[in-house]
Amino acid sequence: MTTDVLVAGGGIGGLSAAYALATAGHEVRLLERSAEFGEVGAGLQLAPNATRILREWGLLDEVTQAGVLPRRLVLADAVSGDELVHADLTGGFQERYHAPYIVVHRSDLHRILVDACRRAGVRLETGRTVERVDSTEDTAFTYCADGTVFESRIAVAADGLTSKLRRAVADDEPICSGYVAYRGAIPLADMPTEVSLDDVIAWIGPRCHLVQYGLRRGEMVNQVAVFASPGFARGEIEWGGPQELEEAFASCSEHVRRSLSSLWRDRRWPMYDRLPVRDWVSGRLVLTGDAAHPMLQYLAQGACQAIEDAHTLAAEVAKTGDTPDWDTALAAFNAGRAPRTARVQRTARTWGDIWHIDGVGRLLRNELMTSLSDVYSHTDWLYA
Amino acid sequence: MTTDVLVAGGGIGGLSAAYALATAGHEVRLLERSAEFGEVGAGLQLAPNATRILREWGLLDEVTQAGVLPRRLVLADAVSGDELVHADLTGGFQERYHAPYIVVHRSDLHRILVDACRRAGVRLETGRTVERVDSTEDTAFTYCADGTVFESRIAVAADGLTSKLRRAVADDEPICSGYVAYRGAIPLADMPTEVSLDDVIAWIGPRCHLVQYGLRRGEMVNQVAVFASPGFARGEIEWGGPQELEEAFASCSEHVRRSLSSLWRDRRWPMYDRLPVRDWVSGRLVLTGDAAHPMLQYLAQGACQAIEDAHTLAAEVAKTGDTPDWDTALAAFNAGRAPRTARVQRTARTWGDIWHIDGVGRLLRNELMTSLSDVYSHTDWLYA
Repeated sequence: MTTDVLVAGGGIGGLSAAYALATAGHEVRLLERSAEFGEVGAGLQLAPNATRILREWGLLDEVTQAGVLPRRLVLADAVSGDELVHADLTGGFQERYHAPYIVVHRSDLHRILVDACRRAGVRLETGRTVERVDSTEDTAFTYCADGTVFESRIAVAADGLTSKLRRAVADDEPICSGYVAYRGAIPLADMPTEVSLDDVIAWIGPRCHLVQYGLRRGEMVNQVAVFASPGFARGEIEWGGPQELEEAFASCSEHVRRSLSSLWRDRRWPMYDRLPVRDWVSGRLVLTGDAAHPMLQYLAQGACQAIEDAHTLAAEVAKTGDTPDWDTALAAFNAGRAPRTARVQRTARTWGDIWHIDGVGRLLRNELMTSLSDVYSHTDWLYA
Repeated sequence: MTTDVLVAGGGIGGLSAAYALATAGHEVRLLERSAEFGEVGAGLQLAPNATRILREWGLLDEVTQAGVLPRRLVLADAVSGDELVHADLTGGFQERYHAPYIVVHRSDLHRILVDACRRAGVRLETGRTVERVDSTEDTAFTYCADGTVFESRIAVAADGLTSKLRRAVADDEPICSGYVAYRGAIPLADMPTEVSLDDVIAWIGPRCHLVQYGLRRGEMVNQVAVFASPGFARGEIEWGGPQELEEAFASCSEHVRRSLSSLWRDRRWPMYDRLPVRDWVSGRLVLTGDAAHPMLQYLAQGACQAIEDAHTLAAEVAKTGDTPDWDTALAAFNAGRAPRTARVQRTARTWGDIWHIDGVGRLLRNELMTSLSDVYSHTDWLYA
């Protein structure tokens, strides 16, 4: 029952960490709570800081084929319908960041990572709910709900926003933003409005926004509608339900309002994050991905940062030589990654506030965005 | 008891109208409610749209000698203390607008206008409270509280924010902004902080701001502190009192906070405006100045717009020939002026919202202002 690495959680972050460490020559076991591997959700954005890593891992072609390479990232005012600013994602952008911007179905990326882990020899186990990890000087003991105990040199917590393993380093709870997301990925032919498959477009409005882009070689359209729930603000237990959706976008353009009809109504995602914490390591346990730094999705960096975590963790282990010094590697990983993800977490909140601003703040934002001369000055820190 | 023109109100607007019409050859009587002419207040800003007119009237030299010609209009963040943007008021500015930017003590400008009216033969009467104006086809009958009735070809309402004569055209009431102003004009030597006499500087902060500039050849410093009253927001009858002042500026820089100590505490100015109205004429009565278009002071245009009114009214009367067609002149004055003052009223509100914005709105504003390349694009409509 002993491996070098035990990864708790089979989402995109956990699979990435398992893959990166397995291809570096370590024995890896990954435990997933569900009975089968799979991903709930719709589209996912992969910025160059993530696609550069996917290329290094040899997975970029597969991801590119499953996804779409949009030509523009667009911010538009959801009320007036006016475009505010865009980033051209073709030539100059790819040269600057040495990698493409890709949108892909969450389940496609997930499947590609599962297959890659299998090829790399990761022992994938489903139906295992990890409860806690204890460490001795050189061993992590991972306890599952079914009584099983696994031994490993390190345990990687990739158990997401509601991480149980995070309790080893912080006693905080997820923070509710009061916003809720509705998603939907449907065939292009079924869309009630015209959507440009060349664009990832965010229609940003007062306390609401709608993101639209193409998926699966343009056969599908992905949508995410996000709004501040009045029910949450009133302190109601049940909040963010479908009855709030239309009203939240009532001030928006006809295009935005008509697009809402194709969102899934049977499922919704209340939006949470946590405040940054500095320490992700407890003995031989290390937090990664949403377990370490859950963030609001306004920068579309949740998956990207988890992939960066996996890449950096494997690199820090490699730096310590053929016989890994796990403690040194975990400390270096923590020290290198925490400041960056803290910045992403905080900037995502601010970016959300900017998207959702009302009144004269909206006028100021629009004036600023339409007069922006250098888009790269706002993306270099994140994508470069 | 008959004159060509009767002006109701001896403030800056009424005196300006009386002077413009008297120097154009009309017999003018001006009625002031107070027992003596005088002005309560402190400093006053005169932008080129007003100083151009003062020059045409032959009063600019006198006003310049009483006032100060600042070199810069500055907006600075009241919290960080950082300068955000400035307009250079010297060479290029004066060439563009053909006139200077002047700051002057309100009572000095008032005295200059009273003297000018006397020289021009205006019959100045104090202690006369105008109650209402009735019109026949060619005569305005002005009724005073003491029973006196004056006849004139036209009556000019210059009775300010709380105008009684406005009732002839609108049944609205002044709208309270919930903000209150504290003022103070004190000798430079008594200032607790260092103030640049070259600048008109507005320290703008969340729900508050402080304006500072020199007066009387730099011997005095003028200050205006404005803030949103929490008492008003709570619906209290008494609000905006001195006990609210310090707290309202608690988040501001030390310079701003220390400067507050030299404000007068025994008097304050709750800030009101009204919504624009289109019609200022009823029979032979015409509204001017604050009676016609009271505005929040964020563009410092209250006196300037009243001076513009006076200039335009005299010009429209002159256009109708040696024997004035008063009805045509009033209609043309109304039609020409109302759209402009409506824009100033609305823009003043928006400008106030921009000054007082908080949160990410403040960050956006600061970013926008510090990156502003062409200040004139924001001042041409008002000053040109």
